[in-house]
Amino acid sequence: MKRVFNFSAGPAVMPEEVLRQAQEEMLDWHGIGMSIMEVSHRGPEFQSVLEQAEADLREVLKVPSNYHVLFVPGGASTQFAMVPLNLLSETNKEADYIETGLWSQKAVQEAKRYGVINVAAQTKLHEGLYSLPLQHEWRLNPKAAYVHYTPNETVGGIEFHWVPKIPGIPLVADMTSSIMSKPIDVTQFGVIYAGSQKNVGQAGITIVIIRDDLVRDPLWHTPMLYRYKTHAEHHSCYNTPPTYAIYMSGLVLAWIKQQGGLTVLEERNKRKAKKLYDCIDEHGDFYFSNVVPECRAMMNVVFWLRREELTKEFLTQAAQAGLMNLRGHRIAGGCRASIYNAMPEAGVDRLVEFMEDFAKRCS
Amino acid sequence: MKRVFNFSAGPAVMPEEVLRQAQEEMLDWHGIGMSIMEVSHRGPEFQSVLEQAEADLREVLKVPSNYHVLFVPGGASTQFAMVPLNLLSETNKEADYIETGLWSQKAVQEAKRYGVINVAAQTKLHEGLYSLPLQHEWRLNPKAAYVHYTPNETVGGIEFHWVPKIPGIPLVADMTSSIMSKPIDVTQFGVIYAGSQKNVGQAGITIVIIRDDLVRDPLWHTPMLYRYKTHAEHHSCYNTPPTYAIYMSGLVLAWIKQQGGLTVLEERNKRKAKKLYDCIDEHGDFYFSNVVPECRAMMNVVFWLRREELTKEFLTQAAQAGLMNLRGHRIAGGCRASIYNAMPEAGVDRLVEFMEDFAKRCS
Repeated sequence: MKRVFNFSAGPAVMPEEVLRQAQEEMLDWHGIGMSIMEVSHRGPEFQSVLEQAEADLREVLKVPSNYHVLFVPGGASTQFAMVPLNLLSETNKEADYIETGLWSQKAVQEAKRYGVINVAAQTKLHEGLYSLPLQHEWRLNPKAAYVHYTPNETVGGIEFHWVPKIPGIPLVADMTSSIMSKPIDVTQFGVIYAGSQKNVGQAGITIVIIRDDLVRDPLWHTPMLYRYKTHAEHHSCYNTPPTYAIYMSGLVLAWIKQQGGLTVLEERNKRKAKKLYDCIDEHGDFYFSNVVPECRAMMNVVFWLRREELTKEFLTQAAQAGLMNLRGHRIAGGCRASIYNAMPEAGVDRLVEFMEDFAKRCS
Repeated sequence: MKRVFNFSAGPAVMPEEVLRQAQEEMLDWHGIGMSIMEVSHRGPEFQSVLEQAEADLREVLKVPSNYHVLFVPGGASTQFAMVPLNLLSETNKEADYIETGLWSQKAVQEAKRYGVINVAAQTKLHEGLYSLPLQHEWRLNPKAAYVHYTPNETVGGIEFHWVPKIPGIPLVADMTSSIMSKPIDVTQFGVIYAGSQKNVGQAGITIVIIRDDLVRDPLWHTPMLYRYKTHAEHHSCYNTPPTYAIYMSGLVLAWIKQQGGLTVLEERNKRKAKKLYDCIDEHGDFYFSNVVPECRAMMNVVFWLRREELTKEFLTQAAQAGLMNLRGHRIAGGCRASIYNAMPEAGVDRLVEFMEDFAKRCS
């Protein structure tokens, strides 16, 4: 068995130790003679997995006790509806959205079904370079029920390296591709949500961290499973949850702790990203980034070949060298190296080496 | 490693061959150097898994070409809302429901949010025995947009062994705990749905088989991911689906084919159920079923000890003998042996032996 370096944007590379543990426990979890996927979600075995996963998540992200941690079935796109359905009300259907890429656009589209959505700011394009709007440029609605933004846009590779401060209005963040990449201050947010398939396990659940007072009665037509209340009151077990996906998230969270937590991972992630962006900038006649340096994403390094016609060959040769899934998003094109926590530094080193070599050979 | 006999109602026992294959492929699926859970849902590897799973499901259930097969994230409780949201309309908000147990009750509750729901028939209780209402007893509404029923109620262990015929009105069936237990004639249904975690894999997806003409514009407030149209138009890949859960369903479907398909499994399942019900009836002074023989479920054998105070001891000793998860549903009490496809006949034989022995020792 050979393992390759997998730069997929998600579902993405998992820590090898986690896969090995899952492999070992597949037919017999902790000596019970059954796989964890074969037992009731209400039994003591799975309940212990769920409790430990929540405890580890709380520890790693330092989640205060006035926040619920929910494991909601399905991907983060569920939240594009759940946020407005639960945070808007009959008396206030206004909300602000910051539109900085494909995912925040999708969030806006879905929210418009339920409320009056103000796009308070958008990505800026100046001389071929994208940048994020500074907070003083945001045209916020003081009556908004919440402000929604996407700290990291996976497709464009553009990231907020600061957290907006909006006194009195809950801040909602789609952290799907940045969660667990660095420490955060949860108290700055009303709701944080993140699909699991990048830095917290396999696809199939979304982690929702929500402040107590925001768990309230939703709009009347909200389905039972789209109510935060349902998940909060039943501790993520209103109906059968995706038990194996939660188990895998638990293994990943334990791994994060073993690595030394988010401070350690952030250092490593910064180093990994710097190596790649440095390589791109140092070979600026061959590669380029279309994002200003201060907004470049740490997890998703998007880049382009100056001679676009070489992209296919670049991807083919990279794959031959065991550097997989570097193709850019199907809508955006170009190249993208997603370097989540589970991507070892050796993978980034190998990619840098390959990029330098390819540039030399094709220049 | 020892494996036990696991009678869990769901998540439930998986075929051991399936677990072994998943174990083997965990770090390296088909020689790609990655787990199938690590690759993009839009890449060729996962797309081939999805296509094969759908093809096998269509083959095994003989699904006609005018039906869509959808893999919808989340459990079957999502369908309690999706069915009315998609099948009711502004001009017709009436639907009929047959209420025969916990699950159909939940379906009724959720549907009432969206429409005028007529409970057309209910389970009957006569001299301590439950039975299902015959079709001539159903008080159907001729203007109903659809009729919903639950062919097998997992909690009560009560099953329709016939399919209602309602000309001109789509029949919707929650087959969560009966799908894949026997051949069915799909053309008798408008919509079939089933959570995966009993006979089609691990928890996390619901299989929806829906006739073309029923995939239509839903009520205005339906979230994007609660629209059958979204899943049908995007071949179950509108957003990141629970890829590993679909992979596991694919392995189970391939296993079903290897076993000889549903005709072979039905024979085996009938035999397994008969052995257990015969044991209960033959020891009628010690055990009893509260369902009339013609309505007893093939997959979930619910039974009681005449001396209810012995139940705890029965469950403890059963567990000591490697017969796990025989406790009845937390609401119903009693005992329940769920004997899905993956429960080998040897497990049923062992249980019968244990029940006979326990009865003898305690009589």
